[in-house]
Amino acid sequence: MNSASNLRTNGERLWQSLMEMAKIGPGIAGGNNRQTLTDEDGQGRALFQKWCEAEGLAMGLDTMGNMFARREGTDPEALPVMVGSHLDTQPTGGKYDGVLGVLGGLEIIRTLNELNIKTKHPIVVVNWTNEEGTRFAPAMLASGVFAGVHTQDWAYAQEDSQGKKFGDELERIGYKGDEPVGTRKMHAFFELHIEQGPILEAEGKDIGVVTHGQGLSWVQFTLTGKDSHTGSTPMPMRKNAGLGMARILELVDEIAWSHAPNAVGAAGHIDVFPNSRNVIPGKVVFTVDFRSPDIAVIEDMEAKLAKGAKTICDLMGLGLEMEKVGGFDPVEFDETCVSAVRNAAESLGYSHQNLISGAGHDACWVNRSAPTAMVMCPCVDGLSHNEAEEISKEWAAAGTDVLFHAVVTTAEIVE
Amino acid sequence: MNSASNLRTNGERLWQSLMEMAKIGPGIAGGNNRQTLTDEDGQGRALFQKWCEAEGLAMGLDTMGNMFARREGTDPEALPVMVGSHLDTQPTGGKYDGVLGVLGGLEIIRTLNELNIKTKHPIVVVNWTNEEGTRFAPAMLASGVFAGVHTQDWAYAQEDSQGKKFGDELERIGYKGDEPVGTRKMHAFFELHIEQGPILEAEGKDIGVVTHGQGLSWVQFTLTGKDSHTGSTPMPMRKNAGLGMARILELVDEIAWSHAPNAVGAAGHIDVFPNSRNVIPGKVVFTVDFRSPDIAVIEDMEAKLAKGAKTICDLMGLGLEMEKVGGFDPVEFDETCVSAVRNAAESLGYSHQNLISGAGHDACWVNRSAPTAMVMCPCVDGLSHNEAEEISKEWAAAGTDVLFHAVVTTAEIVE
Repeated sequence: MNSASNLRTNGERLWQSLMEMAKIGPGIAGGNNRQTLTDEDGQGRALFQKWCEAEGLAMGLDTMGNMFARREGTDPEALPVMVGSHLDTQPTGGKYDGVLGVLGGLEIIRTLNELNIKTKHPIVVVNWTNEEGTRFAPAMLASGVFAGVHTQDWAYAQEDSQGKKFGDELERIGYKGDEPVGTRKMHAFFELHIEQGPILEAEGKDIGVVTHGQGLSWVQFTLTGKDSHTGSTPMPMRKNAGLGMARILELVDEIAWSHAPNAVGAAGHIDVFPNSRNVIPGKVVFTVDFRSPDIAVIEDMEAKLAKGAKTICDLMGLGLEMEKVGGFDPVEFDETCVSAVRNAAESLGYSHQNLISGAGHDACWVNRSAPTAMVMCPCVDGLSHNEAEEISKEWAAAGTDVLFHAVVTTAEIVE
Repeated sequence: MNSASNLRTNGERLWQSLMEMAKIGPGIAGGNNRQTLTDEDGQGRALFQKWCEAEGLAMGLDTMGNMFARREGTDPEALPVMVGSHLDTQPTGGKYDGVLGVLGGLEIIRTLNELNIKTKHPIVVVNWTNEEGTRFAPAMLASGVFAGVHTQDWAYAQEDSQGKKFGDELERIGYKGDEPVGTRKMHAFFELHIEQGPILEAEGKDIGVVTHGQGLSWVQFTLTGKDSHTGSTPMPMRKNAGLGMARILELVDEIAWSHAPNAVGAAGHIDVFPNSRNVIPGKVVFTVDFRSPDIAVIEDMEAKLAKGAKTICDLMGLGLEMEKVGGFDPVEFDETCVSAVRNAAESLGYSHQNLISGAGHDACWVNRSAPTAMVMCPCVDGLSHNEAEEISKEWAAAGTDVLFHAVVTTAEIVE
């Protein structure tokens, strides 16, 4: 890499491509609505494919619609280094979440072609289908099938809110390929992504070196009290499910803090029934989200909450049901790949720090199939899954340069 | 009253009329959907009018659609004793809330006619328009206009969720009268109503003698934090509006208990935004309902909550807005009328206790215009505003007998 350490990708070209892609499936507030397997997703894929073909890449397409744009290496035996993320967006999503990782991969190829640099290992730019999971649950669906987490039949049968099936919609937009999903071997996988959190910006760092992905536990609570009139029910005769929820939320916060600094906990989803100003809530359904990079911590938090919630509900005469509605184990990324990212940031002179990814990413599943690491760049105010999501051109360029150096180091430049 | 103390209304006849009225605007689960100014309300009014005319009563109708069915007294100078409640229901309401008070009044007339009893004062059975307030806000609208709490123009302009105006709908169903609202004088007003709370049943009492109506304060809170990802936002960087709401709900409970036994407090309405499992709530809107029969207590509770909520939000970095969205002063019913109710229960041998009405009732507004009292009977499990609302035939009969004796004592039987 000595001879390569001065190499840079073209940040202007990358930014132009990001802006070009953002024209497809525009949102209503400056962001994007390019949900998976919509016509707009099809148009976004076609543009990516056109750009890849212009660079002489061979496009592969698997039965889950994952796209693999391949630049050959010099060694026919060498497994490819893969790089990528996703082009689909939230319904009111930003222009960079996922897209930066795919077009950053493409920018690597453009730079290599422009400079006529050869690598021993092939380099493959990937667009994973349905990372967002808002149209078809769950998130990271196609990388999950690729990694053997879900079956393809199950994925095909997932329905959107209109009752349309994933498999049918994949076929409809013309991106159901013949290559059996998960059969493609790789040497390593790198994913560049915006942080979707506030840490890098707050710390003034250019680059996040992602060492772990947080494990997740989603437990849905249903508290059952008694609907009754807020005026005519004396305090001692109330079974206020809303108050029970309040006490459990306080406990969630206490438990998460007790595992500082890496554990987090909150409830984002809260539904109160009947939700009328003059009726004491007879039922509240809410989901507690606990995360930690340590599975033992997650299990400890779940156990403490289950015990504490039972005590609260027993004292208040409330019914309590808990259902685990989601979860994944913490991820530890590959040491060699993580070092490649850290070394790239270091050699390029970018400030950097280790990060634990709080959100799920395709890399978290792919890590089960191949050595994997992630690069993160800051995003303004930590805002993501929002049309106002913003990054600077410099952040995008720095992240892509680090991705480039990590990838070409791993793919081995042929001098 | 000595000669009258053995008189009883006809509980079977009353029950049959309740069941007959319940056939109009049936609900989907055994109750009723006869919302104000719908075709079904018109049909309910017509049936009431037919029954009144069969008893020889003269029907008056005011410009707010309030119906006044009058049985003449022997003294042309004497002001009428009025008795009644409302025939409109919640969208998923019960068969007794309101209806018992109107048909209980009619049963008094039927009994007096059957026994050929004359009273010095006329007796007028009233059906107040739009007590429920679910189709056109607020509740107790027409009794409020009658009592001068609201203007008629404002009431006419109230719109339902389809944008239809109260005044137009009143005209459409044919119940906009010519008599100017609020001009009708009265000697006294009595309202029989189901308790809509659990006290009488729990205490094993037949009759509630309502001495006060609780005052109400509705304050709507808007807490503003920051939407952010539940995974990628470290605990110290969160502004969790949901957690702020939880802390304020706990404070509401503490404050209400500090004014035991008569004060109550809770939040029935809670909306969390964006209400997604993986987004820390950036905004929560909820309404705190405080009630007490003592205005000083209500003011103290409001002040303590405002101060405590500010401390909570300041510590958490949350924005706080408070808006008073509803309220009425406590009501003290007329001592003479209340005594008439208590004496009636006593002389009829029914167990009874004083009650503070936690819910609002037409009687709370009419009390501003004339000496007023209320009789309450138990309801099963305190359940109301629910199709499963239930009372026993015996409870209805006992309440109506007490109403009857209170009314005829006040209207003065002419021997």
